Amino acid sequence: MPEEQYMRRAIRLAGLGLGWTSPNPMVGAVIVKDGRIIGEGWHRRCGEPHAERNALACCTKDPAGAVMYVTLEPCCHQGRTPPCTDAILENGIAHVVIGSQDPNPKAAGGAEVLRRNGITVTEQFLQNECDALNEVFFHYITAGRPYVAMKYAMTADGKTASCTGASKWITGPDARAHVHTLRHRYTGIMAGIGTVLSDDPLLNCRISEYRQEGPCPAAKPRQPVRIICDSHLRIPLDSRICRTAGQYRTIVAHTHKDPQKQAALEAMGITVLETADAEGRIHLPSLMDALGRMEIDSILLEGGGTLNEAMLQAGLVQKVYTYMAPLLLGGKDAKTPVEGLGFPAPGDGIRLTSPAVTPIGDDLLIEFNVPSPHPESRA
Amino acid sequence: MPEEQYMRRAIRLAGLGLGWTSPNPMVGAVIVKDGRIIGEGWHRRCGEPHAERNALACCTKDPAGAVMYVTLEPCCHQGRTPPCTDAILENGIAHVVIGSQDPNPKAAGGAEVLRRNGITVTEQFLQNECDALNEVFFHYITAGRPYVAMKYAMTADGKTASCTGASKWITGPDARAHVHTLRHRYTGIMAGIGTVLSDDPLLNCRISEYRQEGPCPAAKPRQPVRIICDSHLRIPLDSRICRTAGQYRTIVAHTHKDPQKQAALEAMGITVLETADAEGRIHLPSLMDALGRMEIDSILLEGGGTLNEAMLQAGLVQKVYTYMAPLLLGGKDAKTPVEGLGFPAPGDGIRLTSPAVTPIGDDLLIEFNVPSPHPESRA
Repeated sequence: MPEEQYMRRAIRLAGLGLGWTSPNPMVGAVIVKDGRIIGEGWHRRCGEPHAERNALACCTKDPAGAVMYVTLEPCCHQGRTPPCTDAILENGIAHVVIGSQDPNPKAAGGAEVLRRNGITVTEQFLQNECDALNEVFFHYITAGRPYVAMKYAMTADGKTASCTGASKWITGPDARAHVHTLRHRYTGIMAGIGTVLSDDPLLNCRISEYRQEGPCPAAKPRQPVRIICDSHLRIPLDSRICRTAGQYRTIVAHTHKDPQKQAALEAMGITVLETADAEGRIHLPSLMDALGRMEIDSILLEGGGTLNEAMLQAGLVQKVYTYMAPLLLGGKDAKTPVEGLGFPAPGDGIRLTSPAVTPIGDDLLIEFNVPSPHPESRA
Repeated sequence: MPEEQYMRRAIRLAGLGLGWTSPNPMVGAVIVKDGRIIGEGWHRRCGEPHAERNALACCTKDPAGAVMYVTLEPCCHQGRTPPCTDAILENGIAHVVIGSQDPNPKAAGGAEVLRRNGITVTEQFLQNECDALNEVFFHYITAGRPYVAMKYAMTADGKTASCTGASKWITGPDARAHVHTLRHRYTGIMAGIGTVLSDDPLLNCRISEYRQEGPCPAAKPRQPVRIICDSHLRIPLDSRICRTAGQYRTIVAHTHKDPQKQAALEAMGITVLETADAEGRIHLPSLMDALGRMEIDSILLEGGGTLNEAMLQAGLVQKVYTYMAPLLLGGKDAKTPVEGLGFPAPGDGIRLTSPAVTPIGDDLLIEFNVPSPHPESRA
């Protein structure tokens, strides 16, 4: 069925924006006249034109009377760029086929505007496939909090380090490179102070050493914001995170005041974020709200077992990336990906859905979704 | 290529014996004359005729001058049944195509016997595929010890029970049913006394409740021998294992003498096996040797983390079945599949190969092989 093919092409085009459009959604558009594609485009990067305008701009024929397939309802408001509905009307498009509805109350209503101006509109066409493009965006817009993906690398017996604490390396080079493609996709990376103290990580995106995704292969990768949960501001000023704060945007969240340390961190260019306290630790839902207000729409959680468990207990995780190495390490005291107190019984745990297994080198990547506890939420 | 098709059919026929032929190998045979299959058969059960004789017995034409495809070198010795080479010669087969070579020194040499009697012989035809049928047999024959497959069910964060010890249920009903098909395939099931004391399991094969494999769907499943590692003979006489010992063959391995308890167990029909001591615990290689002498060619290891680790440290595990549930349980003190002291660093761990992922209900079964540390070994 050609209609579906046009929308599937728009979905593929939209996906080319992966890692670049945040906090905007990924969107693709295809314009068809007399049974042929005459123009196509996608949203390349936040601040640049939307998919509809890019598609109209490159039409090989006059688009008057043509059909536009677009993966997300065209916006009808002036945001960073002018409304797409204006461009559609000015170019005389006759029929618009829409995949996802826009969950953003500021931007929605585009379909209605088009109809009022005499354009025929088909909505919810291949909606599930179109929605899947923008899980992050839908979650962020509806919840006002970042979409959080928990990532860990473990052995086939569930260990993230040996009994001596050695974790170099559980997974192979291909899986470790793949983590950098994830870091590129997410707006922030979050870790706990325990990870900083034990591993002194850089937590940047070294994708250029590996494979570059997105529309500009020559460009430097977009660097994620580094977010460290550090209730007592214990982060060492000579840690690699602090020393590179001028280069990579860094947020340290804390609950206990320490004006002197705070000033020292701010002098290094770090955003120090005081958050609500929950029994001496950071109140994570409040932190997520604060990060959402800072336009951080998505976070890759690379926590240790303690932070991972706290985020799960608070219901703040939407996705899980499990890298599993073909290795057995054993050890009653070896670290595991989710620690803390834990859930009391199997029936109380976090039930995951939609497992998807991808071999990466010698390892397996197993992706899961965490179903939303609120059925009214779209994400 | 028809030659390969005939051997592949013989391989499929051989597989019908899965779970029934032990301690014999699975073998299939196809007889071809004038480009058509005129007879085929497989080894159905230990003590019954070999594949070659079954294929010859059901030929629809005189097999004189025909070609026989057989997955394993025909035996030339009198074992439980007479030599297959005699039957091949008596029936005038002209050409024999062989997959695997027979690693059993008592039975090998069949190809040579056939050649000496004027039959043309092709060896090592699709050998890898034929060998894969009988990993258990090859290991058992060459090592003299059971082929051990470690099985565990864990969450996506590597827990076999919650922090409170609750393990009912980690995996879903389909995965739990699948475990019974494994129990049917292996000659023995091994667990530690810790598992007996905490779970009071029956450790039998309840495959009839689920799906019956093998040639006799109406037959009761073959019940595995239950093997309990119990160095101090702590097993309670009123445990389900002891109470059902009259019904299911049971071995309790120990190191510390306790003549009174031993007599009580033996009176219940249990085989009490005193084994060498290694620092107060069972010396597992000696136990495997003893079990091998008892014709236990394969074991499904359903140990807790302590026994699993000890078996791995001793290099006694050949295969791993990881059932992974889409569930996160957390808990620093929750049990994991392999515990004990553990291996000091990732480079010291047990490296696994050939991961194969099968979705079972909502869970994943991930199978791995443990490469033999002895490259000269066939298994």
